[in-house]
Amino acid sequence: MPHPYDPSDPAQPGGPSGSSASSASFDGGADTGLLSPVRAGTPTEAALCDRAWLQALLDAESALGRAQAGLGSVPLEAVRAITRAARADHMDIRALAVEARETANPVVGVVRALSSLVAADDPAAAEYVHRGSTSQDIFDTGAMLVCVRALRLTVADLDRSAEALAELAERHQDTVMAGRTLALHAVPTTFGLKAAGWRQSLLDARQRVDRVLASLPVSLGGASGTLAGYLEYAALHDGRRPDPGEYLDRLTDAYAAETGLARPVLPWHALRTPIADLAAVLALTAGVLGKIAVDVLTLSRTEIGEVAEPHVAGRGGSSAMPHKRNPVLSTMIRSAALQVPSLAAGLTQCLASEDERSAGAWHAEWLLLRECLRLTGGAAHTAAELTEGLVVRPDRMHENLGLTGSLMMSERIAAVLAQRIGKARAKQLLTEAASDAARTGKPLAQVAGALPEVAAHLSTEEVEALLEPAEYTGAARALVVRASGA
Amino acid sequence: MPHPYDPSDPAQPGGPSGSSASSASFDGGADTGLLSPVRAGTPTEAALCDRAWLQALLDAESALGRAQAGLGSVPLEAVRAITRAARADHMDIRALAVEARETANPVVGVVRALSSLVAADDPAAAEYVHRGSTSQDIFDTGAMLVCVRALRLTVADLDRSAEALAELAERHQDTVMAGRTLALHAVPTTFGLKAAGWRQSLLDARQRVDRVLASLPVSLGGASGTLAGYLEYAALHDGRRPDPGEYLDRLTDAYAAETGLARPVLPWHALRTPIADLAAVLALTAGVLGKIAVDVLTLSRTEIGEVAEPHVAGRGGSSAMPHKRNPVLSTMIRSAALQVPSLAAGLTQCLASEDERSAGAWHAEWLLLRECLRLTGGAAHTAAELTEGLVVRPDRMHENLGLTGSLMMSERIAAVLAQRIGKARAKQLLTEAASDAARTGKPLAQVAGALPEVAAHLSTEEVEALLEPAEYTGAARALVVRASGA
Amino acid sequence: MPHPYDPSDPAQPGGPSGSSASSASFDGGADTGLLSPVRAGTPTEAALCDRAWLQALLDAESALGRAQAGLGSVPLEAVRAITRAARADHMDIRALAVEARETANPVVGVVRALSSLVAADDPAAAEYVHRGSTSQDIFDTGAMLVCVRALRLTVADLDRSAEALAELAERHQDTVMAGRTLALHAVPTTFGLKAAGWRQSLLDARQRVDRVLASLPVSLGGASGTLAGYLEYAALHDGRRPDPGEYLDRLTDAYAAETGLARPVLPWHALRTPIADLAAVLALTAGVLGKIAVDVLTLSRTEIGEVAEPHVAGRGGSSAMPHKRNPVLSTMIRSAALQVPSLAAGLTQCLASEDERSAGAWHAEWLLLRECLRLTGGAAHTAAELTEGLVVRPDRMHENLGLTGSLMMSERIAAVLAQRIGKARAKQLLTEAASDAARTGKPLAQVAGALPEVAAHLSTEEVEALLEPAEYTGAARALVVRASGA
Amino acid sequence: MPHPYDPSDPAQPGGPSGSSASSASFDGGADTGLLSPVRAGTPTEAALCDRAWLQALLDAESALGRAQAGLGSVPLEAVRAITRAARADHMDIRALAVEARETANPVVGVVRALSSLVAADDPAAAEYVHRGSTSQDIFDTGAMLVCVRALRLTVADLDRSAEALAELAERHQDTVMAGRTLALHAVPTTFGLKAAGWRQSLLDARQRVDRVLASLPVSLGGASGTLAGYLEYAALHDGRRPDPGEYLDRLTDAYAAETGLARPVLPWHALRTPIADLAAVLALTAGVLGKIAVDVLTLSRTEIGEVAEPHVAGRGGSSAMPHKRNPVLSTMIRSAALQVPSLAAGLTQCLASEDERSAGAWHAEWLLLRECLRLTGGAAHTAAELTEGLVVRPDRMHENLGLTGSLMMSERIAAVLAQRIGKARAKQLLTEAASDAARTGKPLAQVAGALPEVAAHLSTEEVEALLEPAEYTGAARALVVRASGA
Repeated sequence: MPHPYDPSDPAQPGGPSGSSASSASFDGGADTGLLSPVRAGTPTEAALCDRAWLQALLDAESALGRAQAGLGSVPLEAVRAITRAARADHMDIRALAVEARETANPVVGVVRALSSLVAADDPAAAEYVHRGSTSQDIFDTGAMLVCVRALRLTVADLDRSAEALAELAERHQDTVMAGRTLALHAVPTTFGLKAAGWRQSLLDARQRVDRVLASLPVSLGGASGTLAGYLEYAALHDGRRPDPGEYLDRLTDAYAAETGLARPVLPWHALRTPIADLAAVLALTAGVLGKIAVDVLTLSRTEIGEVAEPHVAGRGGSSAMPHKRNPVLSTMIRSAALQVPSLAAGLTQCLASEDERSAGAWHAEWLLLRECLRLTGGAAHTAAELTEGLVVRPDRMHENLGLTGSLMMSERIAAVLAQRIGKARAKQLLTEAASDAARTGKPLAQVAGALPEVAAHLSTEEVEALLEPAEYTGAARALVVRASGA
Repeated sequence: MPHPYDPSDPAQPGGPSGSSASSASFDGGADTGLLSPVRAGTPTEAALCDRAWLQALLDAESALGRAQAGLGSVPLEAVRAITRAARADHMDIRALAVEARETANPVVGVVRALSSLVAADDPAAAEYVHRGSTSQDIFDTGAMLVCVRALRLTVADLDRSAEALAELAERHQDTVMAGRTLALHAVPTTFGLKAAGWRQSLLDARQRVDRVLASLPVSLGGASGTLAGYLEYAALHDGRRPDPGEYLDRLTDAYAAETGLARPVLPWHALRTPIADLAAVLALTAGVLGKIAVDVLTLSRTEIGEVAEPHVAGRGGSSAMPHKRNPVLSTMIRSAALQVPSLAAGLTQCLASEDERSAGAWHAEWLLLRECLRLTGGAAHTAAELTEGLVVRPDRMHENLGLTGSLMMSERIAAVLAQRIGKARAKQLLTEAASDAARTGKPLAQVAGALPEVAAHLSTEEVEALLEPAEYTGAARALVVRASGA
Repeated sequence: MPHPYDPSDPAQPGGPSGSSASSASFDGGADTGLLSPVRAGTPTEAALCDRAWLQALLDAESALGRAQAGLGSVPLEAVRAITRAARADHMDIRALAVEARETANPVVGVVRALSSLVAADDPAAAEYVHRGSTSQDIFDTGAMLVCVRALRLTVADLDRSAEALAELAERHQDTVMAGRTLALHAVPTTFGLKAAGWRQSLLDARQRVDRVLASLPVSLGGASGTLAGYLEYAALHDGRRPDPGEYLDRLTDAYAAETGLARPVLPWHALRTPIADLAAVLALTAGVLGKIAVDVLTLSRTEIGEVAEPHVAGRGGSSAMPHKRNPVLSTMIRSAALQVPSLAAGLTQCLASEDERSAGAWHAEWLLLRECLRLTGGAAHTAAELTEGLVVRPDRMHENLGLTGSLMMSERIAAVLAQRIGKARAKQLLTEAASDAARTGKPLAQVAGALPEVAAHLSTEEVEALLEPAEYTGAARALVVRASGA
Repeated sequence: MPHPYDPSDPAQPGGPSGSSASSASFDGGADTGLLSPVRAGTPTEAALCDRAWLQALLDAESALGRAQAGLGSVPLEAVRAITRAARADHMDIRALAVEARETANPVVGVVRALSSLVAADDPAAAEYVHRGSTSQDIFDTGAMLVCVRALRLTVADLDRSAEALAELAERHQDTVMAGRTLALHAVPTTFGLKAAGWRQSLLDARQRVDRVLASLPVSLGGASGTLAGYLEYAALHDGRRPDPGEYLDRLTDAYAAETGLARPVLPWHALRTPIADLAAVLALTAGVLGKIAVDVLTLSRTEIGEVAEPHVAGRGGSSAMPHKRNPVLSTMIRSAALQVPSLAAGLTQCLASEDERSAGAWHAEWLLLRECLRLTGGAAHTAAELTEGLVVRPDRMHENLGLTGSLMMSERIAAVLAQRIGKARAKQLLTEAASDAARTGKPLAQVAGALPEVAAHLSTEEVEALLEPAEYTGAARALVVRASGA
């Protein structure tokens, strides 16, 4: 196969002078994370690489063998040989990847490679590899193992963030700041409540991830989901036909026990609830992490400056601008949050999976699932770093609260006046006063106090007292307390 | 504003002769379901129309008033007047829709309209409309009410289908048919197992919908999510400042009780877990309905003919072809299943919602949420009709099983032979035999039986016996039984 | 059919006291835009309502009749009667919508209704309605008419914005402001360049919309895309069989001429390039409008305040806060930009459309296409209002430029120093100086000037001169000039 | 950092006995295509791997240097050293990927690595690396180079398919087969027309890809898109300040010439039309390939059997079933078509990119763009193999045409009768006759001929003659001819 592009071809961009790279330097497809810094080098990434995936497929094969052995349908010795041989680091992953084009999935090649390794060790044992099984049983069981392994790492990182945020929420339960709605100052809130909200969302996500983790099932159906192959081999092995229901129960239980996965009600080759469940929790988790990221980005803006990302030497530098300390953690988290919903939609799109096994919908899940896991896991890891080191600046919060000359307290004065002159008239008066104050730059107290209808009911001192933001944080503190116990 | 297009303008498609419609005939935007037959005229559609939504907003306002009255912060009489006035059928929805452009949400206009209606009845009571509240508290609480109302209808329809499928699964637990994978005959299965699988997916969806239904919360936060406005008004009303935490608890509980919704841990103006939960269950539900639809469509194909949609006079007709009885129910269900994942992704994309209230992400949810609910609800209703009347044709299933001259039993013969000559050799022999049989059209038994290595181990009678599909359905029956109790 | 929910049922949220609405008040599904303020009351909305869509279907039917009449296959008189009757305002749209469930598309019912209306006028003419045709020919041709009509309105609104932005770009070509990257001040730019960039994106979108507008084709294929029905009727009409190729050419040309649409190379019932083209330009247009909206929202933030939305009495009010002037136009535009990409993905997902007509993929397009058109058109209309009245505040831009004590000019000093001491050392020095300046709040000039390595090469005056933002706007002015001619 | 999971931990799935893999065997994140067989080993994959991407970044750096050198702002000798050093195979990609977390993009590290390599060769030259530039200029220019290189390969594969399909269309222009709509036989068509339709869609895609290929621009803006850094260095280099507009024009032209890319109207750091254009053509291309795949899958079904994938030894095997020859090419193509629309939506979602450079939206594009390119390119390559070897079975097409006893000709008889007894009555009669024929299994000719109203107008011979499918293919042949010249 010719190299995709010839750098010596002048008709190509980056022609002769543009590149001195020889075609031999391309290794055919390996990705190392160059385009996805949010996960490069994170534990989740390692748990999701091709080798980890291959190992999980092999774990699924050997666990299946052990489950069958436990029921007496496969010799124990054979299964020991299979377990010994089932090591990803003894296989050529790239060769398996390319070979997978012949069958549209990697399992056929993996079975062949595993059988060879087993045969080299114990020829008789090779007969028992993948016995009665089908590609999808192995692939889906392996995929669930990968999901469990990756999601546990994600959960650990969510927990780190939740803890860091609990501390921030408590420490800042009385740190008053501007509440912002539709991009503008609204009424005051506290940074403690904001941190508590971020944490609550992470707890929501964590609870749903936990629920899914406990439910991810083994895949065990055989070619058409009836387990006919398993039963046939079992019958042939000991010469008598087992009761299908009993064998089904025992084999599924044993497989679940060997893998630590759940037992499904039915084979799920074309009933993809587990994938939809994963898509849902991954989109939620990425989304709530994204919420934190967009808030940090906003509050980090040069003009706002109420928070800053952790200071780490060399972090956040620009290729051009010496003064830059870019909020790179939030940027990376947000980049994940922007991607995962679309990827997850690709997964749910595959629910409408035809027949006993789809020609394409199943195959479309793999890459999408991995990227959802990897981006979400990377974002969770990045968020742990962010929340644990977040720099909070109460001084800037206080300063910004004063920016509008108390305009953001207009709701409160309106409420007080409403008791005297009616809600509609009070809101109208304050709307006009706020507009005047904004136009002229005069403090709201002065403008409002000068209105006869206001002056008739409130002294200037009363107005002034009503304008203290720290006195108008409602139940913010109580909310933080209640959420901390959630 | 000029009419969007002038049918008398010859420069426009459908110019003078193309259309005799006067511009007066367009009513500015009303949709009646013309482009969405899957839900036109269904109960869910009615529960989701603009009027139902408006009514829910009004229900949220009056429930809030009652909750405040229960705590003594609002006079009982005022709340009775508000409840009396809170009727969508007394309002001009279209005017409210257009007016919503001024504030980017409909609540400001609804509050104004409600206040007018209340004032006409009891002028003093108008002071207590929307007291201390904010648009998002009302909109989100109303939206949750709409979701609950619509989803209950969806659940009822899922239950109808589950019941119909339970019956089909039981009746056809021994109806053998071809299992199909990657579009081809694989090994046999039963129609009972297929129906049980469809049902199981619906039960999965139903269980998750139920869980979400029980968790949808009221929205209660006030302008910045601190409940400051509510507390301020409460303090003004009886002259003493309530304990914020206690008032928060009591008001939230009362609001939850009045609406039948759950109590949130924190105000969720910018913490959108409930929306993500809804998106997830709607995508799942639409997807599992879509799975049934694509299977019915495949099995309805002229060449397959193993099932047919219910015969209803006039149903499924073509505008051109007299012989057509199109599988219109499945077609409509599938059309919904194709749309919902993308719409739901739009919802999860909005999780990264900045500040105390987003400028846009909140607003983007509304239409997407309604369409997800409406399409899924319509699909569930349509599926109930489909499953309750599905025509199953065991004769065609039997006939199709025979199409390949027993090729689909090759796995079984290979298993039997494997015991004698090893798995690899057995599979190789059968692969060649199957290929020969396919090429020549000869029965597999004949081709395989002619091979010396096969003949050495199996008599022709033994081969014949192994080729009976009904004897190779594995644990299909046991699976149906187990799933029926799920 | 019982009403979806019974407000008197105490088990339902919003039970007895929660709602006094009678079920009679729900009209079964009509939407008026309540949940989509971005388009409520806009011209595009009117061009896309059910009635407009129905009229387009009728226009497609009558244009088809005229095209056939022009070729002599249908009597002229009959076609005149059809054209007279083809009026949406004479039909019951809701009835057609509900009836569409029987056939999964509305055309069968529309043909029946049109035939009745024609028959009432001229019984013989009714024979010629939909002659030789198929539902999809009519629906798709009608859909293309609707698209053309709606997109022309969108283009007009894009033009309004482009003109307004051209003026802003010119007026502010020397209005210096902070360039912002990754949420922080980077180096200076001008508001003129920003406005020119917004405009350029709109021109990109407009050019692509124009291209698509010119390419949208009639649909003409008959039941299986062979035009067999049309040919059969033509042959029967004048007793001799026309040459298929010649008739095909003439009929397609005539249909294209009657509708003003393009002529397709092949019938496109299952070849959906036109839909993908529409999805692409709608996602692009919504996206570039969204870019303007997010920039305006950012620059409108209380702390930034460099732009404001047009002041309109009553616009932007909050239901609670008197001082609020929410950026509602940008909010609504952004809400559309958040929705359209997902909806458009639903459309491209349908490209993989099986057979000569898909069972579901075609049907899934309709609602998605309309919402994409409606949201994008509404956003374009809203953007015209925004750009024409945008308030620009050069004083705030100037003020914000000074916020960081010249930190944003560090790149420039580094460049100058690099000539003397090397790039790496220069960047290192300035990075440290910038960090010091940020920490201590001292001006960068002072901190940098105090460094011996800097002082050795630059006098304090030279440093000061380098720090003038207006002197570091590069080619901003030239870019504005070049873009203005684009 | 501890390994993500410890296989010796019994609490983990795949615990002690489950896996004997040592943690050392995981290489931290490398993907080799194991989960994406549609592209594993294809030329497009190689053109898109991390190394190819890194090379393109280096090509962008050296081209920029040459462009500056051409204008005299950088010494020629320095640029030669840069060009010599700019080789991806001299760099540690994984280290760059991990380092990219510090700055949220890989360019900062690439510049550092390149500078080191240059310095080792020619210390003075290192000063001129990335001179005046910004990360995004290099990344986006490099990305456009990668896109061009990958898309040219895709175009070549589209051309292979188009040629193969042209031949199939011609060869089978008279091969009659059942047209199918909504999953059922409709009226006849030809396989030639089907192949011509597939080809036409590919030509549509190719034309749009070509248009985009010609438009992909260099990125040249500097830190805030004003080119201030470039101008500053140019001024410093030769001691006089160039005219900004003239320098802008010359530098952009030179950069475009060096890379073979187009010249943009404005810097497009936050104006992402090129990305939207790419997303659009990739979604379209994947979609039209998906259309071919779903048609081949349908026609390959065991019961239909009208086409088969190319026979290749070992291809399409199952891990369990010897008889299987799975349609793996179509399956893989469809898997890509199912993924790309969602991924492409992620890209268009990023259009609403705030500021002069987004904190996250830019970063979210990279992985999505690569996967779209890779899946689409892989699908195109796979489709070339599919179309060039597609097995067509006219005998099965003929056989299937006869399945319904001429029911699919009912439209034609209705048309003929309509001339005599009116369209409505004719359709009603044929609908009843078709229904009878379907129910009883009798041929339509017999059932219809027995009806007095039919018999009055048509002899049995006339009815028989009307039922010949080959006589009812309309303009299919002419359409093939016209499309072949398109």
